[in-house]
Amino acid sequence: MSGNSFGQQFRITTAGESHGKANVVIIDGCPPGIALSEADLQPDLDRRRPGQSKVTTQRREPDTAKILSGVFEGKTTGTALAVMIENADQRSRDYGNIKDQYRPGHADYTYDAKYGFRDYRGGGRSSARETVARVAAGAVARKFLAEYGIEVVGYVRQIGDLIAEIEDPFQVTMDQVESNIVRCPDAACAEQMIERINQVRKEQDSIGGVAEIVAKNVPPGLGEPVFGKLKADLAQGMMSIPAVTAFEYGAGFAVATARGSENNDVFQMVGDRVVTEGNRHGGMLGGITSGMPILLRAAVKPTSSLSQPQPSINRRGEAVEVSTRGRHDPCLLPRFVPIGEAMVLLTLADHLLRWRGQCPDQFNTYYS
Amino acid sequence: MSGNSFGQQFRITTAGESHGKANVVIIDGCPPGIALSEADLQPDLDRRRPGQSKVTTQRREPDTAKILSGVFEGKTTGTALAVMIENADQRSRDYGNIKDQYRPGHADYTYDAKYGFRDYRGGGRSSARETVARVAAGAVARKFLAEYGIEVVGYVRQIGDLIAEIEDPFQVTMDQVESNIVRCPDAACAEQMIERINQVRKEQDSIGGVAEIVAKNVPPGLGEPVFGKLKADLAQGMMSIPAVTAFEYGAGFAVATARGSENNDVFQMVGDRVVTEGNRHGGMLGGITSGMPILLRAAVKPTSSLSQPQPSINRRGEAVEVSTRGRHDPCLLPRFVPIGEAMVLLTLADHLLRWRGQCPDQFNTYYS
Amino acid sequence: MSGNSFGQQFRITTAGESHGKANVVIIDGCPPGIALSEADLQPDLDRRRPGQSKVTTQRREPDTAKILSGVFEGKTTGTALAVMIENADQRSRDYGNIKDQYRPGHADYTYDAKYGFRDYRGGGRSSARETVARVAAGAVARKFLAEYGIEVVGYVRQIGDLIAEIEDPFQVTMDQVESNIVRCPDAACAEQMIERINQVRKEQDSIGGVAEIVAKNVPPGLGEPVFGKLKADLAQGMMSIPAVTAFEYGAGFAVATARGSENNDVFQMVGDRVVTEGNRHGGMLGGITSGMPILLRAAVKPTSSLSQPQPSINRRGEAVEVSTRGRHDPCLLPRFVPIGEAMVLLTLADHLLRWRGQCPDQFNTYYS
Amino acid sequence: MSGNSFGQQFRITTAGESHGKANVVIIDGCPPGIALSEADLQPDLDRRRPGQSKVTTQRREPDTAKILSGVFEGKTTGTALAVMIENADQRSRDYGNIKDQYRPGHADYTYDAKYGFRDYRGGGRSSARETVARVAAGAVARKFLAEYGIEVVGYVRQIGDLIAEIEDPFQVTMDQVESNIVRCPDAACAEQMIERINQVRKEQDSIGGVAEIVAKNVPPGLGEPVFGKLKADLAQGMMSIPAVTAFEYGAGFAVATARGSENNDVFQMVGDRVVTEGNRHGGMLGGITSGMPILLRAAVKPTSSLSQPQPSINRRGEAVEVSTRGRHDPCLLPRFVPIGEAMVLLTLADHLLRWRGQCPDQFNTYYS
Repeated sequence: MSGNSFGQQFRITTAGESHGKANVVIIDGCPPGIALSEADLQPDLDRRRPGQSKVTTQRREPDTAKILSGVFEGKTTGTALAVMIENADQRSRDYGNIKDQYRPGHADYTYDAKYGFRDYRGGGRSSARETVARVAAGAVARKFLAEYGIEVVGYVRQIGDLIAEIEDPFQVTMDQVESNIVRCPDAACAEQMIERINQVRKEQDSIGGVAEIVAKNVPPGLGEPVFGKLKADLAQGMMSIPAVTAFEYGAGFAVATARGSENNDVFQMVGDRVVTEGNRHGGMLGGITSGMPILLRAAVKPTSSLSQPQPSINRRGEAVEVSTRGRHDPCLLPRFVPIGEAMVLLTLADHLLRWRGQCPDQFNTYYS
Repeated sequence: MSGNSFGQQFRITTAGESHGKANVVIIDGCPPGIALSEADLQPDLDRRRPGQSKVTTQRREPDTAKILSGVFEGKTTGTALAVMIENADQRSRDYGNIKDQYRPGHADYTYDAKYGFRDYRGGGRSSARETVARVAAGAVARKFLAEYGIEVVGYVRQIGDLIAEIEDPFQVTMDQVESNIVRCPDAACAEQMIERINQVRKEQDSIGGVAEIVAKNVPPGLGEPVFGKLKADLAQGMMSIPAVTAFEYGAGFAVATARGSENNDVFQMVGDRVVTEGNRHGGMLGGITSGMPILLRAAVKPTSSLSQPQPSINRRGEAVEVSTRGRHDPCLLPRFVPIGEAMVLLTLADHLLRWRGQCPDQFNTYYS
Repeated sequence: MSGNSFGQQFRITTAGESHGKANVVIIDGCPPGIALSEADLQPDLDRRRPGQSKVTTQRREPDTAKILSGVFEGKTTGTALAVMIENADQRSRDYGNIKDQYRPGHADYTYDAKYGFRDYRGGGRSSARETVARVAAGAVARKFLAEYGIEVVGYVRQIGDLIAEIEDPFQVTMDQVESNIVRCPDAACAEQMIERINQVRKEQDSIGGVAEIVAKNVPPGLGEPVFGKLKADLAQGMMSIPAVTAFEYGAGFAVATARGSENNDVFQMVGDRVVTEGNRHGGMLGGITSGMPILLRAAVKPTSSLSQPQPSINRRGEAVEVSTRGRHDPCLLPRFVPIGEAMVLLTLADHLLRWRGQCPDQFNTYYS
Repeated sequence: MSGNSFGQQFRITTAGESHGKANVVIIDGCPPGIALSEADLQPDLDRRRPGQSKVTTQRREPDTAKILSGVFEGKTTGTALAVMIENADQRSRDYGNIKDQYRPGHADYTYDAKYGFRDYRGGGRSSARETVARVAAGAVARKFLAEYGIEVVGYVRQIGDLIAEIEDPFQVTMDQVESNIVRCPDAACAEQMIERINQVRKEQDSIGGVAEIVAKNVPPGLGEPVFGKLKADLAQGMMSIPAVTAFEYGAGFAVATARGSENNDVFQMVGDRVVTEGNRHGGMLGGITSGMPILLRAAVKPTSSLSQPQPSINRRGEAVEVSTRGRHDPCLLPRFVPIGEAMVLLTLADHLLRWRGQCPDQFNTYYS
């Protein structure tokens, strides 16, 4: 299978579960000569790390990346790059009834139905623990894309009914995002979000939200007809993240109520560059980048694990009450941001390589 | 590249553009022994066909499928199946200024940026003409899935601000859908939609909408961690369709305002089957089917081609006014339904094969 | 599945069988801007065509290529390119006992075992008829590679115990190869080969041989560790051709009796180019091209279809005598040459694109 | 890229080089429920291990496999399985001139040409060190295939001009192979081979050979038209191993001098099984298994590293003399056997899964 792989030219393959020895990612096709050390991976891993603030789970994992191969004298060699993040806590514990129970909203039942049994420790492969490998790979893509000035920044746009006011999504900086623990660039709204999360936690509940991700300085020409459209690959990447239930780019669902005359962005020249007046098309036309910044959004459901007891069944079909111990994120959004960014980074790196392989003249013209 | 391929085990590869000789699809991995003739492909092709009603474009293409290979004595052989749909109208026409103009909302500019030039006749490969090949392949998948009782039905949920009332999406039948020309099972709303489309057409404008697609009798166990989640592959499939700008399944974007305690569907037994009380999870948990029906939605933007003049630029960067002749769909939704269904059918066929290859015991237990 | 696909960046997918309507190939990833018309495909198709000379089968098929998509105004567009070759002769015939018999050396039994039944007309998908699609695609690759001066020439080295004397394989020209009907550049040996084939045909028998293929002006750097080594992909390509039973490159099996001290080719400079003194390494080291010409060989078994009666069994396990009517090639080698070349061309085109996508600096340096 | 991946359903991806921290393999698609522990991997790793006998290199690496993920309570979970083998010896050493020199027969120059620079420590990714990951994965495939009684046994057939006499390749047992340190089941010839290797080592030289690999109890039906023929995938697998220069199956190159009437194996019934009288077809017809045992051969070149000085050039094109220190295998064949077996095991596991996914009726009929 290649269910555990993503991308074609910049192709990652991951393995690892919640309580195995380690999570690992292999990157196949990374260009040679990119300066890379383990320190480059740490900032994004730290942004994703559990226990980073009072609005996240209080579990603690150091999440230190070890580069196993593919880097020599500080540079990528062009051969397969492997990164491992060991799981700090593999203690065998008493999982009690959990091993037989089907936690609501989780993949316990579906894994059993698919495979016949499951690694019940912390959700096994269905745990969001696996995203640590994506984030490590995304950090490599970030370094590569930086060579072309391409930047990807994500932030929390909405938690519950609290919606941040963002004057211009394309002006949001990483510093603004990182200036508060919910990663929302609207400082006032961020305060309310933090309060809301704390309240939800006290109520032994959880809450969902929406993240927005922007990619800037993307060249026109990325994406391939017809199934490899960039919007399709971005959608796959984002929707492959645990808890994501919806994806849109540009005007997204709002196109439903729009007329063509208002939805079409008008082309014009600014200097020698083709631009559009607005950006309802979210930076992609025909699934290929237009050179305008990319804008996308993903909805993240409220954490399924709750401290409050929930009714369910066990493997034998008997009614049970599920109570999960309380060290879960009451809201996934703050830690989701770097994961979402990683999938965007990986998708862009992949398509940049594909474009420059197939159409070097256009590539070279653009970057000359 | 494999930008023109979709799926792994039931894998399609398509080629063809608006004004080439033909569109063609190769299906690799279709199981042997499925009864199949060209007549089986026609109903879905007819549902997608231009000129089918007064709310669609008045262009006329017969869209007759020719099976080139892979069927013998009325049954699939298990070897590569190829289907060709010839383009009826390849007359060379005067494309006038179109060849140099960048039509707003279209891929003219992005194709030029990517490849250096483009086949400007009718949009070339970026034309929705290519979806004819997907629909033909989807009809093959439909026949295969029918052997397992799996059914896929789509319909129009919304056009502009007109939203159909659907009591239970999972009870909507193909007959209801096909009972009117907009493919909306709410008959009263359908009337309004038809009126709206006519009005929009008169205004030389276009309008967007939302389609909803349901899959029933889907076994639990389809989908693969972590990038091959069914929700991710469905998203890629749907988002790869021209004009689709958003995707959601189950509660979709509504999870943003939900608490975990309300969003989690409760497991229970009905007879010897595991079911959930509600279906906010849209039939997938951890990206793997739960055995509950699948529900998804896609937003489709208003047709970019408008009869009214629109400002734009040409290849040389000069300001121009674009007017496209009036035989375009004023609303894409009615013809979108079979295309959306096709992508769902293809995704399910693919994952059914993957599951029964990797986990035959679970597969056989379920279907015994 | 992707059993019907070959390559990654320059990726072909084929469909078609002996007696279906047509054979078709889709090329995904072909660079834009290559001058291409149907006339470009014909020379290689003619070299493969049945009925071309007295040493081949006397069946006649025009094998005319039709480009269905991907070419506009005489140039490839960069989007999916499809080529169709219709099967001239699809008359339904009386296949008599053939439909139940397992012809010795053929895939009748293995297809039945795999799929449960088979298209028995002319071997169905297992017929060498499918190679017509490869040759059409190979001709496209040839045009692309010509832009870089890369040339691929194959010829017959051996038929039975007749072994051509070739002073320097790297000097053999296409003209020499095409100067006789067995495609052997040793004119004297070619005469003997023709005589041998005629004799074999009279004896209602068939005979095997060895083809040799050379690729010149190949840049150093093609091929990827570790499974994507060029030698591995070439081997897959060649071994995927019907009737091929052995593959070797450079010294091939002769390395078994060699000492390292004699087998290692010595590096030296000629001008500013790195070359080796000999070329026992066949142009690849570590599975990556060295810049020296590539040399490979493939063994082709004697045609399995014989006019003389052969003992076998039928589907019911009963002993039968198989007699196939006499219009088969008594020796496959003359028509094999363009097919083998096609697989080499496709493999090189694929790896050239992969290299220039991943390592543009090295690519550009070499070709500057 | 997917140069570092092999297979489709049972798909491995590897990373790792000679002197990085570790070699790692991810297996995607391994069926659930296979009993597996690290101890299962060790026997094959030990057969490949350096320092195992006096005819191999005297370097010592423990080559202990660590399962990082995909196994729970002693069974495969069906999710991504990762295995890591740490590199014992990563000491930084003085590589002296080696870092600039192009060792004859090695990939030093081709890696430089491809990537612009290289990890020169021990050959980096081009080192046969990477095969440790293949062997670990092959051991997993071996456990899976054993459930179907499928067995793969390889042995050394030839070293230099010493050719073992093997009465019946299909009767050779693993015990016979492991009864001597060259892994040649002809005990008398084995003695001579050992002597020859010692002599070659004394002469500061190396020597090549041929390995033969047999697969028994393989069902008919494995392999896919047309590029996914089993013979093609086996060829790719074998040719992807470092130092392999030739591949053949069944009669191999000997078909060149054969007549069809002698080369065709005659079908007959033995009980209710279809068999052939001889097995010149090596167990595959039309690239699909016939149910007869598979037989293949690979030629392995003499080790390129020699203790004796060899002339070459360095990165600057200057003439140099290369002397590599003496801890290399004077003959690769004894350690090659488990590596070759691994590639056959992986190919068979992959195609078994593909077949049972696409054609479950045929699969179930055969194994009922």
